[in-house]
Amino acid sequence: MKQIYEEVLGDSQSTIELVASTRSEVGMNMEFMPAEAARVSHASTYKEHSPEKNMRLMEYLSEHEHMTPFEHQSATFRIVAPIFVAREWMRHRTQSYNEVSMRYTSDIVGHLYSPAEWRGQSAKNKQGSAGTLPLGVEAQAWDHLHKAYDAALSAYAHLLELGVARELARLVIPVGHYTQFYATANMRNWAAFCTLRCASNAQYEIRMYAQKIDEMLTSLWGAAWTPLRTWE
Amino acid sequence: MKQIYEEVLGDSQSTIELVASTRSEVGMNMEFMPAEAARVSHASTYKEHSPEKNMRLMEYLSEHEHMTPFEHQSATFRIVAPIFVAREWMRHRTQSYNEVSMRYTSDIVGHLYSPAEWRGQSAKNKQGSAGTLPLGVEAQAWDHLHKAYDAALSAYAHLLELGVARELARLVIPVGHYTQFYATANMRNWAAFCTLRCASNAQYEIRMYAQKIDEMLTSLWGAAWTPLRTWE
Amino acid sequence: MKQIYEEVLGDSQSTIELVASTRSEVGMNMEFMPAEAARVSHASTYKEHSPEKNMRLMEYLSEHEHMTPFEHQSATFRIVAPIFVAREWMRHRTQSYNEVSMRYTSDIVGHLYSPAEWRGQSAKNKQGSAGTLPLGVEAQAWDHLHKAYDAALSAYAHLLELGVARELARLVIPVGHYTQFYATANMRNWAAFCTLRCASNAQYEIRMYAQKIDEMLTSLWGAAWTPLRTWE
Amino acid sequence: MKQIYEEVLGDSQSTIELVASTRSEVGMNMEFMPAEAARVSHASTYKEHSPEKNMRLMEYLSEHEHMTPFEHQSATFRIVAPIFVAREWMRHRTQSYNEVSMRYTSDIVGHLYSPAEWRGQSAKNKQGSAGTLPLGVEAQAWDHLHKAYDAALSAYAHLLELGVARELARLVIPVGHYTQFYATANMRNWAAFCTLRCASNAQYEIRMYAQKIDEMLTSLWGAAWTPLRTWE
Repeated sequence: MKQIYEEVLGDSQSTIELVASTRSEVGMNMEFMPAEAARVSHASTYKEHSPEKNMRLMEYLSEHEHMTPFEHQSATFRIVAPIFVAREWMRHRTQSYNEVSMRYTSDIVGHLYSPAEWRGQSAKNKQGSAGTLPLGVEAQAWDHLHKAYDAALSAYAHLLELGVARELARLVIPVGHYTQFYATANMRNWAAFCTLRCASNAQYEIRMYAQKIDEMLTSLWGAAWTPLRTWE
Repeated sequence: MKQIYEEVLGDSQSTIELVASTRSEVGMNMEFMPAEAARVSHASTYKEHSPEKNMRLMEYLSEHEHMTPFEHQSATFRIVAPIFVAREWMRHRTQSYNEVSMRYTSDIVGHLYSPAEWRGQSAKNKQGSAGTLPLGVEAQAWDHLHKAYDAALSAYAHLLELGVARELARLVIPVGHYTQFYATANMRNWAAFCTLRCASNAQYEIRMYAQKIDEMLTSLWGAAWTPLRTWE
Repeated sequence: MKQIYEEVLGDSQSTIELVASTRSEVGMNMEFMPAEAARVSHASTYKEHSPEKNMRLMEYLSEHEHMTPFEHQSATFRIVAPIFVAREWMRHRTQSYNEVSMRYTSDIVGHLYSPAEWRGQSAKNKQGSAGTLPLGVEAQAWDHLHKAYDAALSAYAHLLELGVARELARLVIPVGHYTQFYATANMRNWAAFCTLRCASNAQYEIRMYAQKIDEMLTSLWGAAWTPLRTWE
Repeated sequence: MKQIYEEVLGDSQSTIELVASTRSEVGMNMEFMPAEAARVSHASTYKEHSPEKNMRLMEYLSEHEHMTPFEHQSATFRIVAPIFVAREWMRHRTQSYNEVSMRYTSDIVGHLYSPAEWRGQSAKNKQGSAGTLPLGVEAQAWDHLHKAYDAALSAYAHLLELGVARELARLVIPVGHYTQFYATANMRNWAAFCTLRCASNAQYEIRMYAQKIDEMLTSLWGAAWTPLRTWE
């Protein structure tokens, strides 16, 4: 069954939803579209190719880095994720984005990400984490986090009350705050995203989103997506 | 009625076919998707907006050059066009292409474009044409064209016969020869294509293709496509 | 005199520095390179064209939207800007970026943007500002801002002390915090950036950066940059 | 010594010329710029890093697919190549191009590529070549080639004489005809070009151009280019 909605980080805020994807106008199965694109098939000839032939061709294309046939189908997701995740995400310049603007609205203000457990700093890897903090220490960490979050929301509310423009009041919003955006990419570029963000050195939070995308595109594109899955 | 197949240059060779396009997974009308993308709507809220509101928003976005909401839906065409048209086309770097390779196959060799009338050189515009040649002169022009075309096809056949690799035999193929390719772009970039190629200073042949695309996307995307139509 | 370093937002933190730009290997004046690119000039022919001819050609190209000749020269800046400015900036997907990562280092933590005056919310424009707050009210706004900023820095320090990974401790960092990045784009895309970000409806803070870039590229590229300046 | 001009296919027509490249405005050595970009170095700190440290960092970046630091420096070439080579080249959509237009001028017409030897069709690889034809057969192949070329140039001249617009007269021009263009890309994308076009399955002719680019960028960027050289 096709997956179109998922929770991601274990709270009800962080979600991902499949909004749209490419479909054929001439009856092609999108599972095999890269094979038809590689052959530049037209409506009356594409039916001649068996699923087995299509799959062998797609595997060949992927192995030999002929990636253009994987660029003709795309998928659009609606994502709710913390700003620090969105920041990493939008470094992928081959996706198209629309994001809710805190210049325009304060409606989304108030939802903040709180990790279910606290990962410790890795000693070996400057930009990685290792293990989790002991229970008692975790309690202190949540306490510090929530104090800072509360101070931010309180300052935000006061600034709006004083008549400060939303575009300036947002200065206090922490990067753990949730934002919402649309992201569209073609299959090749979703695979590039997953290659980097499903990797073990990606930060846990964006990795959870990338894994959901991987699952949802597996259920959406099946045989066409499989040869691109070089991660894990 | 949706158009998905068109002849373009008045011969049966030159064709354009709508192969695929983006559809919503959550019931959105693609005519209004740019409006929903601008709002970052989710499945349960997009239904609240009337067609009129959606259209006003899309017009506003287009007028104020907020173009990202027009990037979430795409369309794929299969095109058969002369090489000189394909050469101009593929300068548009925001489209994804797959083209039949004459390194790989000689099956498509033999189809050549012959203009229905001969345009004269413009005196004012170095890269334009003006008027058509007188009838008797036109006959001479076709004669020269067909002699060169025949010589090319004959040399190509001879070279293959001698055992020359297809990748070298193709050296003699003229740019009036037909090629076949898939082209995929999002709505914003199809509009950029039409802006340049529906313009009166675009060469007649590519303009015919661009006009068919404009017609087919009007029938496909209606209200979403209209505010982008700055040409003509 | 060429400008290569500027302060931007009136504090010593917010800076912009010209790191690199394209130079000719065959003696072309970069002020006229778009004209030479349009002509596909080679080393021995480009000298034949007068500055006047070059300028007329570049104006013609820009007016007729022949923008590719403006893509052959690029400039790299090092920017120190608040995260909310960097977020708007990096939506420009035609630039190349490298940014300091707070997963990797905590060295840059501690510098926060404080506006020199407080703009009020515009009543007419949902995403704009209008006027500034009265003096007494401004004092209250700074007070709220600094309380939230202090709470964030204090929580950050405590989290690190508890052994929390930098990648999680950063959750409390507000979008008013400074970040540092390299941004490279070609001339055409710097002009696209300035068109949007020098506009009066751009947020004041990013507009200040865009205006500095405009000034620095005027001093760097002169005659080549001028025909692209459609803003103001 | 820096190479800036090369003949490519063994005739005097096919050439490649280094027109421009990125230089630092603050004294950085471009051989190490990717390392400085990865560190987001500023003018006063970049001098602290030794060549050895820079090289180790660049190797690490390349091995771990952190490619963005290689996007800040670019190079522009002027290329004279047969149309079939230009067609393969311009499928690389990350480069910026300006090409001489045969709509605009007939000045470049008359130069045609003739291979120094004739490669046979590969039996194993549908899009490859294998071995060369025997001497006597080669003579026949040149004969067929030149007959077709002569017919094309003769038809072209006659069509112009009849007053046909250049944009139509060009229909007879074969893809073995030379064209001229500027191509600009950043270091990362030149490496992507060389990865595909220096490979043994690339057609001989474009491979010769790619190898010259590889040599010229080795002489231009040295230590920064080396870790990207995954071909050969």
